[in-house]
Amino acid sequence: MNHLLNDERNLTMLLDFYELTMANGYLQSGLAKTPACFDLFFRKVPDSGGFAVMAGTAQLAEYLHSLRFAPRDLDYLRERGFPADFLEYLKNLRFCCDVSAVPEGTPIFPGEPIVTVRGPILQAQLIETMALLCVNHQSLIATKACRIARAAQGRAVMEFGARRAQGYDGAVFGARAAYIGGCSSSSCTLSDQRFGVPAGGTMAHSWVQLFDTELEAFCTYAKQYPGSCTLLVDTYNTLRSGVPNAIEAFRRELLPRGFRPQAIRIDSGDIAYLSIKARTMLDEAGFADCAIIASNSLDEYIIRDMLMQGARVDSFGVGERLITAASDPVFGGVYKLCALEKDGKMQPKIKLSENVTKVTTPCVKKVWRLFDRASGKAIADLLTLEDEILDETQPYELFDPDYTWKRKTVSSFTAKPLLEPLFVKGTFVGETRDIHEIRDYCAAQTATLWDEVLRFENPHNYYVDLSQALWDEKQRLIGESR
Amino acid sequence: MNHLLNDERNLTMLLDFYELTMANGYLQSGLAKTPACFDLFFRKVPDSGGFAVMAGTAQLAEYLHSLRFAPRDLDYLRERGFPADFLEYLKNLRFCCDVSAVPEGTPIFPGEPIVTVRGPILQAQLIETMALLCVNHQSLIATKACRIARAAQGRAVMEFGARRAQGYDGAVFGARAAYIGGCSSSSCTLSDQRFGVPAGGTMAHSWVQLFDTELEAFCTYAKQYPGSCTLLVDTYNTLRSGVPNAIEAFRRELLPRGFRPQAIRIDSGDIAYLSIKARTMLDEAGFADCAIIASNSLDEYIIRDMLMQGARVDSFGVGERLITAASDPVFGGVYKLCALEKDGKMQPKIKLSENVTKVTTPCVKKVWRLFDRASGKAIADLLTLEDEILDETQPYELFDPDYTWKRKTVSSFTAKPLLEPLFVKGTFVGETRDIHEIRDYCAAQTATLWDEVLRFENPHNYYVDLSQALWDEKQRLIGESR
Repeated sequence: MNHLLNDERNLTMLLDFYELTMANGYLQSGLAKTPACFDLFFRKVPDSGGFAVMAGTAQLAEYLHSLRFAPRDLDYLRERGFPADFLEYLKNLRFCCDVSAVPEGTPIFPGEPIVTVRGPILQAQLIETMALLCVNHQSLIATKACRIARAAQGRAVMEFGARRAQGYDGAVFGARAAYIGGCSSSSCTLSDQRFGVPAGGTMAHSWVQLFDTELEAFCTYAKQYPGSCTLLVDTYNTLRSGVPNAIEAFRRELLPRGFRPQAIRIDSGDIAYLSIKARTMLDEAGFADCAIIASNSLDEYIIRDMLMQGARVDSFGVGERLITAASDPVFGGVYKLCALEKDGKMQPKIKLSENVTKVTTPCVKKVWRLFDRASGKAIADLLTLEDEILDETQPYELFDPDYTWKRKTVSSFTAKPLLEPLFVKGTFVGETRDIHEIRDYCAAQTATLWDEVLRFENPHNYYVDLSQALWDEKQRLIGESR
Repeated sequence: MNHLLNDERNLTMLLDFYELTMANGYLQSGLAKTPACFDLFFRKVPDSGGFAVMAGTAQLAEYLHSLRFAPRDLDYLRERGFPADFLEYLKNLRFCCDVSAVPEGTPIFPGEPIVTVRGPILQAQLIETMALLCVNHQSLIATKACRIARAAQGRAVMEFGARRAQGYDGAVFGARAAYIGGCSSSSCTLSDQRFGVPAGGTMAHSWVQLFDTELEAFCTYAKQYPGSCTLLVDTYNTLRSGVPNAIEAFRRELLPRGFRPQAIRIDSGDIAYLSIKARTMLDEAGFADCAIIASNSLDEYIIRDMLMQGARVDSFGVGERLITAASDPVFGGVYKLCALEKDGKMQPKIKLSENVTKVTTPCVKKVWRLFDRASGKAIADLLTLEDEILDETQPYELFDPDYTWKRKTVSSFTAKPLLEPLFVKGTFVGETRDIHEIRDYCAAQTATLWDEVLRFENPHNYYVDLSQALWDEKQRLIGESR
């Protein structure tokens, strides 16, 4: 387990105040230990995409592992009027729930549990705010990064957004999530130091302004960093001064020492046009191996258009629109009660709504992903009751939970459970994966999706179906409530 | 100085990697100590509003005060290939710049310096990432909160967004900024504990689901919190069950004990319609003093529309659209070199651009706000050279820096310098203000703006003008560069 989140900070008090008023209410009403089960799921993929990318579980695990109310927290809560027995309870509180989660880097879909928490209701409820915050934030950024990386069609995408992030953690964990989703590196030094997200970067315009001439600025830099020389060429005029001066600096400072240039970076202007011209100039000067980096308010749409227009860009630096997921900056995960123990037995719970899509799916559930044996492609996800067994040797009939006449029988499939145990009775049992492994996993799992699901606009609706038994149970509860 | 940001964490390494490659470059080239001056400013008010609200300075001050490279940071940088003399330099680095900033809560406008940093270029450049991050994040949220609070026309706005924030700091410092901008409270317990942002909250739907009946859930809660009883009435059906059950619970559990209800909360459905009906039901039941709280994907536009439609809402809970500033989630502050010492004298520096609005304003500057003596209203902001004196007893001719024939002579004004010293030679000299004082200041300063500037759409363009001397200097540098 990494410990960036909690080794230096106690975030136990990062919770909505109502978690505390409810917790005290449970305790005072003798309900604190009632076993309950909550599902964390989301309803809508940001940017109307076909899927999202799971991230943030590692930080959620860290938070749960370190959950402790410190003396100063109890002092604050005493001042806020909470009674002594509740404070005593919190003082001794040690997390004891079971938690399962979809592994980071997995493509996820609306309506399926991506984290489940089962344990005494007081605890299972208390962690709601941070469970949502961890998963919502990093899944948002990983999902956006995955879109942008796909738009770049194999070219490197560097995350450059720290200065426009929504807070310090927004920058650091955002860089982590962006790497999971497919970025190749980040400008954020701290996320390299702590997580191993490769950090890079070379110069700002102020470096160029510091010197009397652009050429002097470039030569000074090239002399200093001959092995990794990337020059920012748009301070004055990209084609008339920046690129020619870069070429001259490469010739003066790199070639005599046996080095080759790494790249030039264009940060303004019409990148498609400038990159094509700059490419020709570099090639003619004998620097066909010098890459071109583009930055300046990029996102997946602009990158796609630039490449369609023939831009000769080898890698993209993406800032504010990635680190804030600017075009749709909210990942709407919710945390809902799905079962509650009564008279020694888990009873399913449902939350109705006027809005049909907001009716929750009750019961303690399992989540399966069905893969076609021949192609390896993901066919659909399936929610079943906890104790249902999927027999992979038999054909299975899937049906749309809303339009139940839409049916499809699959055979020759493998069924993979998506949720893996993270905590058992409060003890961390999850796997600690390094960031590169998670990133590779994301790439491999994304490759199991059909192209139609990967589309940016109007993607094919990937099915998240219910088993017949679960569907029946849901209908029974809806009927009962009316 | 508060210490939430740094007392538990060292954020010195939260910087773009290029700040380090440049810093090493300055050192190796003998330029590290060159005195330089940087301006932090922004170019566009989010949501096309008429002004933004300054925030984040307190955290910037904390960061600068605690700037230290720890042994593990130096180890990391050694591994990344930085030379020994640079590591030694960083090891001994103590912040020694002069920093001035516009006080938190002040209305700010595009193009004017809101933070200035003056000192050795190595240091002044090194802090760029965090200077921008602190100010960009909190100014974004304070500005959005100020819009939402104004839409609520005096009704309380509660910040409810922690679970959808972009990271932990996004929640905690976002709650702080939202309070500065005009929110009355937050759901975030940690920002109450640390900053004194009043935290509140009562129950989630899961509380209601836990009990066999809604009435039992309400009565249990009312018994527990008779003095602050707010009930969530939309779990099943707001008008047919929620409000009648709330009234019944008030009667059973509060009245006999001499308590009055605090509020009901409606979290779904057509809030305008439901609140009008609920108001009537509460009034007829003798609970005219019971407030109605609305939540559910609100922002300034929805609140304005709901109030226009006669919604009977007393306070608003605003979540994801505030804590992420969802409609325009980036505050685009930039950090640009404006002067550099050469031959013992500060020389103005300019950054040209194809885009006229991106040409920077050179020179070490002062920023003034001119107020009309009679009305107390803000007339315009004025940038002058550092040593210019504004004589308030004489008429002053303002002119548009782009359309210079647009001129206006003001007389009977007071001129207030906007930037106040935060650090002198690395020593913190700023004022430490509590959060309530900053919030009051924001309200008072916003009240000095004309209604036309406060408008949500197509606001009047508030002038940020240059003095004749500064304008001349800028033109001279533009001419020289061409």
